[in-house]
Amino acid sequence: MSAHPRLSLNQATIKHASLQEALDVTAAGGYQAIGLWREPVAEVGLAEASARLADSGLRFTSLCRGGFFTMPEGAERRASIDDNRRAIEETATLAGAGAPGSTAVLVLVTGGLPEGSDDLIGARARVADALAELVPDAAAAGVQLSIEPLHPMYASDRAVVSTLKQALDLAAPFAPETVGVEVDTFHVWWDPEVLDQVARAGLEGRIASYQVCDWKTPLPADVLLARHYPGDGVIDFAAFTRAVEATGYDRDIEVELFNADIWATPYADVVARTAAAFDRAVAPHLATAPAEVPSR
Amino acid sequence: MSAHPRLSLNQATIKHASLQEALDVTAAGGYQAIGLWREPVAEVGLAEASARLADSGLRFTSLCRGGFFTMPEGAERRASIDDNRRAIEETATLAGAGAPGSTAVLVLVTGGLPEGSDDLIGARARVADALAELVPDAAAAGVQLSIEPLHPMYASDRAVVSTLKQALDLAAPFAPETVGVEVDTFHVWWDPEVLDQVARAGLEGRIASYQVCDWKTPLPADVLLARHYPGDGVIDFAAFTRAVEATGYDRDIEVELFNADIWATPYADVVARTAAAFDRAVAPHLATAPAEVPSR
Repeated sequence: MSAHPRLSLNQATIKHASLQEALDVTAAGGYQAIGLWREPVAEVGLAEASARLADSGLRFTSLCRGGFFTMPEGAERRASIDDNRRAIEETATLAGAGAPGSTAVLVLVTGGLPEGSDDLIGARARVADALAELVPDAAAAGVQLSIEPLHPMYASDRAVVSTLKQALDLAAPFAPETVGVEVDTFHVWWDPEVLDQVARAGLEGRIASYQVCDWKTPLPADVLLARHYPGDGVIDFAAFTRAVEATGYDRDIEVELFNADIWATPYADVVARTAAAFDRAVAPHLATAPAEVPSR
Repeated sequence: MSAHPRLSLNQATIKHASLQEALDVTAAGGYQAIGLWREPVAEVGLAEASARLADSGLRFTSLCRGGFFTMPEGAERRASIDDNRRAIEETATLAGAGAPGSTAVLVLVTGGLPEGSDDLIGARARVADALAELVPDAAAAGVQLSIEPLHPMYASDRAVVSTLKQALDLAAPFAPETVGVEVDTFHVWWDPEVLDQVARAGLEGRIASYQVCDWKTPLPADVLLARHYPGDGVIDFAAFTRAVEATGYDRDIEVELFNADIWATPYADVVARTAAAFDRAVAPHLATAPAEVPSR
């Protein structure tokens, strides 16, 4: 089996796999890289997870996820900040255990409106506050926090950051090696300003990770599970991929699919299908041809 | 029964009512204004609908809807443009039949991506082309076309215009009395720039209509039916309403609810419930108190 050398499987795509299963099936699928989630890492413990990752020979591309810090000051907020500090340490450890070319990226999903609140502006201000609090830890650990704008349909209950522009504005006060942004096609494809903001993100050196996954309708009953293989929906991956590549982005590219049908498919099939979709929809638009990146 | 003097019931809120039922229940509910849909008007014919509207004593606030003109040139596009021309005439006729203070506003839902297309930028350009083609007709008829940005979750299949800024940019080449924008809280509440764009819309004289309806999650299986009574969700109607009022907007304010539960409720109950929700969530933030607008 083979996969594009810049393709990384985000573990959520095979959500029900254990860490070991995910590492095995990803490596067996010919991938060189994987993005991990905290829960499967915690199941075996960080040290053991790091050892297994090192054994896999895979690059580590990101840890999902920190964030969820929109609540007002109090015990719940302190617990969230502490948890984010642990996530920063986990990211640094895993990036150190991955193959050369790993990136110490912690994806931040900011959180929605606190229960009973309609104060969107206040919630966004508390995201800025949380970043300011976490940046020294991230910088010390050599970790890049990556603010992920989520589709506006998740603005009330999952992420009050809805556009790439907004994410970049939140990141602006901090060094780009410490605070970057996710560019996830599913979340931002609809935005009339997105290609301009991709260019801006590149100029500012803030594209922490490019994630590809497709949008199509009708949406499923649970809109969290609406993500599709690249090429199965309406997103123009040629335009997006060229825009990201034009910034000089040369990191791995993750595919992260939340989709009940995909989760019910055997892992190896999903891994192969993802690689094929990437080859067809994304790879032709990469500035660097596969043959030119043999030994990251 | 009474209702705030600036409250207008959009007929979609009682979707299954005939035109006559809608006029009767709205007037009986103490409302002074109504927004109509083309289909119930067509059922009785434009002349008869106009006569009944005149008899009701209600102001006419908008006709829903024109638009759906993102397809490439060809017979289908010509049919759409022709249909929009008819909608312009209907709007002018109905506004003339409504009580003094009626507004000749035709709401435009632009349409989504054509089948099989991923060319969002091209679809948006064809919206601009359609506006240019329809503006002379609208100007001659004294009708204001109102571009409605829809929530980005509808970008692929219903409206490629997703933000107020984008709607204003599309409107910019044309006179504001001929091309304005809808400000529908449900569609734009999540936008980090929306209050600035409301102010801009005011400065440019382009707020054709302010519509209030609420957002809450989880979304229903059919996301088209996710709209709630003002105050039942997470939208900050104080901030929105003050921002709109600060522009000098003094037209009626529509409530338009697509919601299966509301559609299954007796019309008179919906009308009363809408008026109560408006009084509680919106009216306190209006610049003009009810007592000051007795005789529009």
